[in-house]
Amino acid sequence: MTITVVGSIAYDAVETPFGVRERMLGGAATHFALAASVLHDVRLVGPVGDDFGDADLAVLQTRGSNIDDVERVAGGKTFFWKGKYGWDLNTRETLDTQLNVFEHFAPKLSQASRDCDVLFLANIQPGLQLQVREQCAQAQFVALDSMNLWIDIARDELLEIIGRVDCLMLNDEELRQLTGKPNLISAAHDILGWGPTVVVAKQGEYGSSLITKDDFFALPAYPLHEVIDPTGAGDTFAGGFVGFIASQIGGGVTTPVLRNAMAYGTAIASFNVEQFGTEGVVDVDVAAVRQRVDDLYAFAHFEPIDVALRA
Amino acid sequence: MTITVVGSIAYDAVETPFGVRERMLGGAATHFALAASVLHDVRLVGPVGDDFGDADLAVLQTRGSNIDDVERVAGGKTFFWKGKYGWDLNTRETLDTQLNVFEHFAPKLSQASRDCDVLFLANIQPGLQLQVREQCAQAQFVALDSMNLWIDIARDELLEIIGRVDCLMLNDEELRQLTGKPNLISAAHDILGWGPTVVVAKQGEYGSSLITKDDFFALPAYPLHEVIDPTGAGDTFAGGFVGFIASQIGGGVTTPVLRNAMAYGTAIASFNVEQFGTEGVVDVDVAAVRQRVDDLYAFAHFEPIDVALRA
Repeated sequence: MTITVVGSIAYDAVETPFGVRERMLGGAATHFALAASVLHDVRLVGPVGDDFGDADLAVLQTRGSNIDDVERVAGGKTFFWKGKYGWDLNTRETLDTQLNVFEHFAPKLSQASRDCDVLFLANIQPGLQLQVREQCAQAQFVALDSMNLWIDIARDELLEIIGRVDCLMLNDEELRQLTGKPNLISAAHDILGWGPTVVVAKQGEYGSSLITKDDFFALPAYPLHEVIDPTGAGDTFAGGFVGFIASQIGGGVTTPVLRNAMAYGTAIASFNVEQFGTEGVVDVDVAAVRQRVDDLYAFAHFEPIDVALRA
Repeated sequence: MTITVVGSIAYDAVETPFGVRERMLGGAATHFALAASVLHDVRLVGPVGDDFGDADLAVLQTRGSNIDDVERVAGGKTFFWKGKYGWDLNTRETLDTQLNVFEHFAPKLSQASRDCDVLFLANIQPGLQLQVREQCAQAQFVALDSMNLWIDIARDELLEIIGRVDCLMLNDEELRQLTGKPNLISAAHDILGWGPTVVVAKQGEYGSSLITKDDFFALPAYPLHEVIDPTGAGDTFAGGFVGFIASQIGGGVTTPVLRNAMAYGTAIASFNVEQFGTEGVVDVDVAAVRQRVDDLYAFAHFEPIDVALRA
């Protein structure tokens, strides 16, 4: 019983108002696996270069995650991303992207990775996501991330893979862009007509919303006095979300499971943004995760008070 | 036992992707009173011109709101605002603002309006808000709205009135601008050091957050498939919020009261944005309001599921 995640393993250079890192471990699959491993067994699939360090390989194996399908490409360089955040961290500029080993990546999954119960297709070229989806035919729950670039340049392939997953997780602007619907609820319901049964809108500092055919659920981001580096927050959220679902997959993907999954995703993502890169989640204290889930319950709950309304 | 609200009563010209209105009743005090009157007695204070119609005066009196202190200025023209919204309704451009009767407005409150238990100082020049605050010395709960303009050009007066209210309600960008703090929680805590015990961050389509010294609470906006006109949503939210607090003022402004107040503000604001101007709230069905409050309870609630976490 494992989660397989396919996506980028990267080195990031990041500048935020709180500091600069020239080269730190990052990538969607990395952040996802660190979070999901708090809840379930994870197998990572993705390429790295000769330059990828043993210490970083050890980080990928945090909490027992399996790296048999992390392919070290001889003579290749690891994917590299450089970005800079604005003062309120709500805007970021990409300064450099070097695909490197991702340029010729063709996902080859071992039988153990193909046998996953739960699959997360992190943000990569939709054609590659389709190849992986086909290799993991019997996965009971498949979640997908993507980005504006693929909506622009690979829309047909993106629509094809969306039609073959259970859950689409996108930023709310991306949901609008994908559907052409300015209203988030309408946009999500369009997508629910394309195949997925669950749409998660990632809303950055505002938290996230979950939309199904008959249900709506929203949680705020965990309130923090200081956010240091939002890089990887969405993938960390996805890791907690999908990890929780995987932990309960025997009982089905019910409404209570989806809602708790939102809380675990939110809680673990809050540790990610408190520190640079992977620092916040690699050693995360599980009692602290549980406390933040309990806090989120309290932050969103009210005891109804009866009041007379005037017609 | 009444709420007094001081603020603009206006004619608005609005263009949204869903239509155009050349001249419709609007203004902060108007929207506030329509919402608050679902929960409590309201007295409006503000000037209108000769051009203000009797039908619009009747709207101001919805659900018994008192207009004795709505001053009709002979020879004057009613405040006018014209704006246009972008396709996703998250941006708006002000095309025209005519202060008209507001240019020389000096709030003169009747004794009945001074005797309010609860006071809402809608967004007007902070010096005028101070004058009103002084006239309502014994109000048990005073809430304040403002805007970026006053942060820019009347900061000292704004800080003075903030120091004399219980609750500051601003958009999150305005909270950042006011404090110079990019982080919302830090910004709110700065303000909690200036006098208010409650800060409400209005976050538009993302809902709202409530921050006190020891507590945090957030609700999403009510999920709607179609938003027609967001004009007045913030003031409608404030009306439901402050109206609920006023309905419970005998028991004190407790955490459960504040949280239910957020739900009533959110629910009533959702009726505002479904139609142009005052159309959605003037005839609002109270059973439908209660239903949306119940829905909001459900949209934000999860039943915790025990799960083993891996260290």
